[in-house]
Amino acid sequence: MTKIAIAGAGAMGSRIGSYIKQAGYDVTLIDTWPDHVQAINNKGLEVQTETNTYIVDIPAVLPKDVTGAFDLIIILTKSMQSEEMIHQLKDKGAIHQDTAILTMMNGLGHDERFAKIVPREQVFLAVTMWTAGMRGPGQILLEGQGSIELQRADGQADQRTETINQIFNDAGLNSKISDNVFQSIWSKATLNSVLNPLCSILNKTIYEFGSYEHARAMVTPVIDEIVAVAKARNVELDGAALLEKIEAAYPKETQGLHYPSMHQDLYNGRYTEVDYLNGQISKYGREANIPTPNNDMLTHLIHQLEMRYVK
Amino acid sequence: MTKIAIAGAGAMGSRIGSYIKQAGYDVTLIDTWPDHVQAINNKGLEVQTETNTYIVDIPAVLPKDVTGAFDLIIILTKSMQSEEMIHQLKDKGAIHQDTAILTMMNGLGHDERFAKIVPREQVFLAVTMWTAGMRGPGQILLEGQGSIELQRADGQADQRTETINQIFNDAGLNSKISDNVFQSIWSKATLNSVLNPLCSILNKTIYEFGSYEHARAMVTPVIDEIVAVAKARNVELDGAALLEKIEAAYPKETQGLHYPSMHQDLYNGRYTEVDYLNGQISKYGREANIPTPNNDMLTHLIHQLEMRYVK
Repeated sequence: MTKIAIAGAGAMGSRIGSYIKQAGYDVTLIDTWPDHVQAINNKGLEVQTETNTYIVDIPAVLPKDVTGAFDLIIILTKSMQSEEMIHQLKDKGAIHQDTAILTMMNGLGHDERFAKIVPREQVFLAVTMWTAGMRGPGQILLEGQGSIELQRADGQADQRTETINQIFNDAGLNSKISDNVFQSIWSKATLNSVLNPLCSILNKTIYEFGSYEHARAMVTPVIDEIVAVAKARNVELDGAALLEKIEAAYPKETQGLHYPSMHQDLYNGRYTEVDYLNGQISKYGREANIPTPNNDMLTHLIHQLEMRYVK
Repeated sequence: MTKIAIAGAGAMGSRIGSYIKQAGYDVTLIDTWPDHVQAINNKGLEVQTETNTYIVDIPAVLPKDVTGAFDLIIILTKSMQSEEMIHQLKDKGAIHQDTAILTMMNGLGHDERFAKIVPREQVFLAVTMWTAGMRGPGQILLEGQGSIELQRADGQADQRTETINQIFNDAGLNSKISDNVFQSIWSKATLNSVLNPLCSILNKTIYEFGSYEHARAMVTPVIDEIVAVAKARNVELDGAALLEKIEAAYPKETQGLHYPSMHQDLYNGRYTEVDYLNGQISKYGREANIPTPNNDMLTHLIHQLEMRYVK
């Protein structure tokens, strides 16, 4: 895998891309934000960590200016922009018959959507605990550590999975090959499907949300619906463990003082990813004839708020 | 029924009380707001209508200053203050063994709560379409027309029902005796349980709420739960007709430009009546083993917002 692209080089894409680049690989950042692309090309990517600031020289390009094909394309756009991105890359000849297309985005159903555009055996899934923040065009803020799990979307073994895993570990990204990546994806999506919409609807920090005396009674039915829908799709989730993880985020000492990312999207006037979280759960629920009233309602409430806040 | 009291003489209580007083009856307003009581006693109740303003001379009193017993007490406090009011009136000797205690408040379950304080055969239920607004202490704003339906809470015929109905009609309040007042109460509570919490959570007018393309998909499950819970309590509701009524409120020409009363309570820093609407439906649902996930979630969301807004 000589040529690697990060398609969607926001904070997370820039973090992953810069780590791989620093490990000596040929990495290109692809992003639709002209100021960001220009800044990276003019001054390099400026990385600020808890302890210092440094520059990573890495090429960046708009999708329309992509040339040549890539062996590995890591998709880290916003969920709703990912299909358009893949279409553009396909049109530009950036995808060859062995290109591994790896989504590391939050949310559910990306593999199915991607498999409508490229052969399913080229689709790989990853879930990550790495995070990152954007400071401005060409500038990212990196805190904490993370990990990655990955697997080919159809569950088949593949030499490319080994290679991608090696690249990630060369880059210090703490990666491992999973034999059940869907479980990890669904577990993360469950956490996101609870705190993201609820804190967004209420305009509350995670701590403020968790301070409500009936917070457990409020989140449990949302989790239960997701567990039931996952089960119908042969994904076994541990509802009690997920509840515990959610409640572990409440204290001010953990994640309590933060607003979830959906809150940041919404109140900054951007569409949220609710259709890839609660909305996708509702969709899978309808397909499996499992009622998902809580996820339906949360999806509707977020869409109602998008009507107000999205510019 | 020579002596009549309105317990809870806010906008609605003052409207009903002033109409009955003007019909020549002996009416006393009882309210917990000292400025309001004082203004009414000093200057009379100032009534502003669409066409003129006039003064109604009517005595007003704080609960602690009530003397003597009443034959009819019409309860129009906020739902959460009604039990305390009845306890106070009972302690002051204002309730004798034939006193008719008539609740005209919105919401569900008042009859059961009242029957724990006074004998059930003294409890009467009314539902009204009259509305009123408060302009300030001793000042109310009256628009539009309304009607009243009433019945003894246990469904039994009672000469007092006839008498109260006569008093209301003498006062021009367009009253009739119902043989199924619960159906009317539940129908009104359904409308209030849909638009009140949703417009409050979203901080939207009724029109803004109704402009969402999936508004029908959003409100229908809430209605369905209420219809199911009502049925378990032998109250037959027409879900399709209720949906139609709700949707008839969306246009700007009808009620679209208004915020529901719960919105006004919440954003003015007052506790809402959600526990007497969605919360009561959830409670009845649990008793009847009928799931009410939408009403549960709406109740929790409103309580979460009360944590923020109530002073």
